[in-house]
Amino acid sequence: MNAKSTEKAGTSASGHQKIDWAKINMPMLAKISDDFAQTKPFSELTIGVSLHIEKKTAVLLLVLQTGGAHIVATGNFGTTQDDVAAALNELGVVVYGRRDDSQSEHDANIAKVLSHEPNLLLDNGADLIQMVVRDSRFTTKGILGGTEETTSGDFRMREELAGDIPFPIIVINDSPLKLIVENKHGVGQSIVESFNRITNLMIQGKRIVIFGYGWCGRGIAKYFKALGGRVAVVEIDQITCLEAAVDGHQVMDSLEAAEWADVIVTATGRKGVIGPEHFELMNDGVILGNAGHFAWEIDTPVLLKDAKSVDGLEEGIEVCTMPSGKKIVLLCRGKMINLGGSEPKGNTLECMDMGFTLQALSQECVVKAGEELVPGPQAVPDRINIDTATRMLSHIR
Amino acid sequence: MNAKSTEKAGTSASGHQKIDWAKINMPMLAKISDDFAQTKPFSELTIGVSLHIEKKTAVLLLVLQTGGAHIVATGNFGTTQDDVAAALNELGVVVYGRRDDSQSEHDANIAKVLSHEPNLLLDNGADLIQMVVRDSRFTTKGILGGTEETTSGDFRMREELAGDIPFPIIVINDSPLKLIVENKHGVGQSIVESFNRITNLMIQGKRIVIFGYGWCGRGIAKYFKALGGRVAVVEIDQITCLEAAVDGHQVMDSLEAAEWADVIVTATGRKGVIGPEHFELMNDGVILGNAGHFAWEIDTPVLLKDAKSVDGLEEGIEVCTMPSGKKIVLLCRGKMINLGGSEPKGNTLECMDMGFTLQALSQECVVKAGEELVPGPQAVPDRINIDTATRMLSHIR
Amino acid sequence: MNAKSTEKAGTSASGHQKIDWAKINMPMLAKISDDFAQTKPFSELTIGVSLHIEKKTAVLLLVLQTGGAHIVATGNFGTTQDDVAAALNELGVVVYGRRDDSQSEHDANIAKVLSHEPNLLLDNGADLIQMVVRDSRFTTKGILGGTEETTSGDFRMREELAGDIPFPIIVINDSPLKLIVENKHGVGQSIVESFNRITNLMIQGKRIVIFGYGWCGRGIAKYFKALGGRVAVVEIDQITCLEAAVDGHQVMDSLEAAEWADVIVTATGRKGVIGPEHFELMNDGVILGNAGHFAWEIDTPVLLKDAKSVDGLEEGIEVCTMPSGKKIVLLCRGKMINLGGSEPKGNTLECMDMGFTLQALSQECVVKAGEELVPGPQAVPDRINIDTATRMLSHIR
Amino acid sequence: MNAKSTEKAGTSASGHQKIDWAKINMPMLAKISDDFAQTKPFSELTIGVSLHIEKKTAVLLLVLQTGGAHIVATGNFGTTQDDVAAALNELGVVVYGRRDDSQSEHDANIAKVLSHEPNLLLDNGADLIQMVVRDSRFTTKGILGGTEETTSGDFRMREELAGDIPFPIIVINDSPLKLIVENKHGVGQSIVESFNRITNLMIQGKRIVIFGYGWCGRGIAKYFKALGGRVAVVEIDQITCLEAAVDGHQVMDSLEAAEWADVIVTATGRKGVIGPEHFELMNDGVILGNAGHFAWEIDTPVLLKDAKSVDGLEEGIEVCTMPSGKKIVLLCRGKMINLGGSEPKGNTLECMDMGFTLQALSQECVVKAGEELVPGPQAVPDRINIDTATRMLSHIR
Repeated sequence: MNAKSTEKAGTSASGHQKIDWAKINMPMLAKISDDFAQTKPFSELTIGVSLHIEKKTAVLLLVLQTGGAHIVATGNFGTTQDDVAAALNELGVVVYGRRDDSQSEHDANIAKVLSHEPNLLLDNGADLIQMVVRDSRFTTKGILGGTEETTSGDFRMREELAGDIPFPIIVINDSPLKLIVENKHGVGQSIVESFNRITNLMIQGKRIVIFGYGWCGRGIAKYFKALGGRVAVVEIDQITCLEAAVDGHQVMDSLEAAEWADVIVTATGRKGVIGPEHFELMNDGVILGNAGHFAWEIDTPVLLKDAKSVDGLEEGIEVCTMPSGKKIVLLCRGKMINLGGSEPKGNTLECMDMGFTLQALSQECVVKAGEELVPGPQAVPDRINIDTATRMLSHIR
Repeated sequence: MNAKSTEKAGTSASGHQKIDWAKINMPMLAKISDDFAQTKPFSELTIGVSLHIEKKTAVLLLVLQTGGAHIVATGNFGTTQDDVAAALNELGVVVYGRRDDSQSEHDANIAKVLSHEPNLLLDNGADLIQMVVRDSRFTTKGILGGTEETTSGDFRMREELAGDIPFPIIVINDSPLKLIVENKHGVGQSIVESFNRITNLMIQGKRIVIFGYGWCGRGIAKYFKALGGRVAVVEIDQITCLEAAVDGHQVMDSLEAAEWADVIVTATGRKGVIGPEHFELMNDGVILGNAGHFAWEIDTPVLLKDAKSVDGLEEGIEVCTMPSGKKIVLLCRGKMINLGGSEPKGNTLECMDMGFTLQALSQECVVKAGEELVPGPQAVPDRINIDTATRMLSHIR
Repeated sequence: MNAKSTEKAGTSASGHQKIDWAKINMPMLAKISDDFAQTKPFSELTIGVSLHIEKKTAVLLLVLQTGGAHIVATGNFGTTQDDVAAALNELGVVVYGRRDDSQSEHDANIAKVLSHEPNLLLDNGADLIQMVVRDSRFTTKGILGGTEETTSGDFRMREELAGDIPFPIIVINDSPLKLIVENKHGVGQSIVESFNRITNLMIQGKRIVIFGYGWCGRGIAKYFKALGGRVAVVEIDQITCLEAAVDGHQVMDSLEAAEWADVIVTATGRKGVIGPEHFELMNDGVILGNAGHFAWEIDTPVLLKDAKSVDGLEEGIEVCTMPSGKKIVLLCRGKMINLGGSEPKGNTLECMDMGFTLQALSQECVVKAGEELVPGPQAVPDRINIDTATRMLSHIR
Repeated sequence: MNAKSTEKAGTSASGHQKIDWAKINMPMLAKISDDFAQTKPFSELTIGVSLHIEKKTAVLLLVLQTGGAHIVATGNFGTTQDDVAAALNELGVVVYGRRDDSQSEHDANIAKVLSHEPNLLLDNGADLIQMVVRDSRFTTKGILGGTEETTSGDFRMREELAGDIPFPIIVINDSPLKLIVENKHGVGQSIVESFNRITNLMIQGKRIVIFGYGWCGRGIAKYFKALGGRVAVVEIDQITCLEAAVDGHQVMDSLEAAEWADVIVTATGRKGVIGPEHFELMNDGVILGNAGHFAWEIDTPVLLKDAKSVDGLEEGIEVCTMPSGKKIVLLCRGKMINLGGSEPKGNTLECMDMGFTLQALSQECVVKAGEELVPGPQAVPDRINIDTATRMLSHIR
């Protein structure tokens, strides 16, 4: 027996360990890696990357590297895991930036990636695309195209760069696979797990209100109910409300819900859905958490301002004592609770294995099948969705 | 607004914060505290305590203190949370010992507690009871009786001290309330949460085998299935097997299960239920975790010895590569996974609020209603079970 | 192809068809039949039977006949299916009585069975046992013992015949197998099915109250919730109430429940749990059904008397219009709804296959293993419970 | 108390009783009836109807009548319930035809309806529309438009009458409300209920395969699993397969499924999905049922031809003994099982209350809001979907 101990320092060692655990549980990328090792679709090409740098994205970058690519990457602002970045650098992936970079350092890193004159872009929020199209220091000439992970990046391309992107960009996030596998089931599972992990509270018998019954809300409601919670849904679309009702959930308006709830979780994508008019009606001890991308669904600034005192207790937990003496418990300052509290791990490895399979196959598609693509943002081609579903099914025995 | 930041150091400050969060979510103890403040059942009495020292037990000790008791306590071996102990000391509870005490220091702490000549004992594993009955330095004369938290303590009293305990001891653990609320639902929820927290893996579609379909196994199976897992049960009692089958689970023998599983969780209370004959049949990448009290259900020593290499990856995860090249993933070295991995929180606050209500009312019962009790270990009186159920129901609106 | 058409007349033909369908789906009895064909445990013995005569009991009687027994049977009062009785007679089982027998004819049939001087009794409600012990026309001399299906029969033996039964009677109903398989899951499934079958109403989103959270109530609540109902439980035992709450159901007192419900189902075993004080609070259109053995849980006489008018609409449905104009819908006049409405089929074939396996093995036990039994009523021996569970498991693949 | 007894004869009395039960449970139509009594949208207009004549459609026709319409109706071929037709005639609705009409009598009835020169059509399968457009005896001049219930009617209009329909027809069936409320939950519930009602078999522990994971299949799979069945899904679309897998079902190809199943239910909409290649692999005693609209999903002719013998046992159950001796159980000759067996009731009253609210509001829309509609078939306007959802929600408290 030859045991390595688990190291936690920000050195490359812990980075390698994390990447190794992810690799074992991302079998779809492992298969693509084997294929790319033969076919070398990115031979002689440079891929410029702007993406959260953590263990799961690391596995993706290493797969693209195996496909022959030279990878030059930088993280999203404030999220780079330094130990993973260190490990990637040792493995020949160029990674710029550190977790504590300033905004201007971050912008400089984006520019550094572009200075390598990448042939493909792998973007998350359209930072690279924006700069290469708009910044006169760079040219779009050698660029074959690329991929964009997020819907926000898609909006930015359509609104700020409309018509000005001369190469194709495949937008990953709207694939039906992501809506079902990642948003409904992946986020559903991780929000319930995070509620447990942060609060240490019992779910059975609790009155839990979900604001929003989109794909994420459907999953969150399903799994809180599955664990014994009594679930109510607040939703503005009447047809979706009816869906929630026949799914066995109670349906309420937001004020009723505020009065009824033990726990409220927001997943609407909208700003300020929980505000002072709700705080006023809430029960003593109510717990507020957010599952939406932005930290704006609960009106946190007003809550913190109105509170007589705010006590940080366990990590991710702040107890706001209101002038009336009532306590409102705020989780993670209104940020996504599945990325908050102590040691959050985010979406499951298999979710991201699926999502990054879409990425890897879309990158390959940009190189190989240029003719079926048009300039600008576009959906993942159907055949890639079907291929990815088939691959994932082969790992659910 | 007056915000305190969350501190993590081992000073009393973080201890007070943790206790405050627990207090908010242990309303049954809060009510008893209010009552005891009036009735002072423990006036002039000293309670000697041996119990894990952490936020939830801290709330119990403070309630007994409010009831007039002088509390002298020590932790169980190796589990004392020093910040909570420091906070308790500041609040007038005498706490001996630290997390890194040696076994002989631990024994000395037990003796120190007894040297205060307590009138009541609150024991966890019968350490205090054993010493006061068997050690000639101490006398049982002034002791009215006490409570014991665990079934193991109960066994010890019946086997090692049979007939020699001159005072009544109420054993908390076998209450039907604990079987249903804590073992089935509490442990069920926390095992599933811990699997997520440690491994970051998807449950939907996974083949999950539960060894043992007692109260804990029933809950674990229920909640893995509720989250989309495909669950099979291994159980030696045929009547219980049939219960598992009509509950909708597959039923297998242990060798079939070893061949079939993606994940195995043990909850049998028995030693070595997973051994080399199972390791041999397992799938590559199988994950092994334990939910039973002792770390002996999986034959960990043999697994580690037979492995060609053992790589510690994420916290709580070791990948054992067997001579055949097959990987077996061992969680938490075979210890309870809901107490392992990064930042485990154990059973929910409400579970323990219920369990410690049984404790507080049983302590009071020993003082007040001596006549209904007999010397030696005995079950929680029915009226306390009923009273506790009624109290808990009043907090599930 | 050689097709027989389905006949519905009361002739033996439809009886044979029903028995054939039951046989195909009672594999445990089929196996016992094969065994008994070899071992002939009842060779030279006469079994006197008083049991509902329908397809499932018919299969049991034919199995005992295959075991060498001469079978002489009569039905329970008012439940004999004449086509099945005709078929049994053709197959050599002596069956006395018809569905429309009067009470005195029924009593005469019991006496006719006893006049055959049976060696074994197979009773349902202790009619045979009562008569053979108390009626001077008969003697208990040649009787080896027997079995009793019901708990009511058990009570009757203990109360009316205490100490006077000189032979052993094994009482089937209290076996843990029956509580779990038949009461919880079997009755649970059939009550939900019957609610659908009779009312044609949607379950999703309905407010459904279950009175009583014993084994039947647990199953009924579970399956209404599983089909999308919002379930509340009314229960007088506080510990059981708490179980219902952590199972995710609402818990209410009976008056709250009356005000809240869309549907009420009783399963308490007690008389008059729903009475005028509840009728008064109920919603317009509320539906009342009973799942308990006796038709007394809902105070039907008072409801019908107080109603301004009672309109029989669909089969099994009566709409009571109260003086206030409010409508209360009564199902099956307060009788068990899984035996009411059009063409009820009762418990599932597999449930009864299990229950009648207990019967067949217990009958054999009385003949073979007299030494382990005592005179009077007693539980099914453990080894038969375990054997039966094992057999049933072998048919759930 | 003034009790009417339940009558079953084909006279109007039982028709009135059935209609009364439906009315009580169709509150959305009751509200529309109240509104129409004020607004009289169909004053002076004749509505020509071709629709199943049973209690639920009767309620719809009476609502339209209350709205001022003169109603002239005929049933679909072979489904008219004569007692309901008689009751409707007594209430002033003209109904032509009886259950046992021949096809030519049916065609004559369609013509009779059109001979009243209706202003609006309410069609089910486009029989009226086809005849009025194509048959020279009739003119489309006075026709304002109408509604069509089915997707099949929609196809017929698009394929056979493309471009030739000069008035607007709103097609009800594709409303998102119907997909969720009726197809998923309504059909799901009724298929599971019908399986119980017809077979009297236990669901817990059974291996149940659903062919097709469209809206109906999703609901059927969900509810069989909820009742304790072990569910597998066969589906040709890989993305939908993956959805089934993360919903916790097993996914198989059709041959594996044939080998594995205890029960198979088809819901694909396709012809011959179960054929001889499957029959060959099936287990002894396997049960086959269909939930799809047409009786062609199971290749029944081949099954019956290949069987050595076919025995009709309980109503709706035929046991086919194959040359090998294996038994295959066919339910309802491959017709929809929720319309087969003894006394089927079809979709729930609330489902149809919702569907017929779409009908009633769409009929009104044709009269009032002609300008927003185009000639030919078209979807239900969004505002009617939203309005209907809102109305239904108000009845789920």
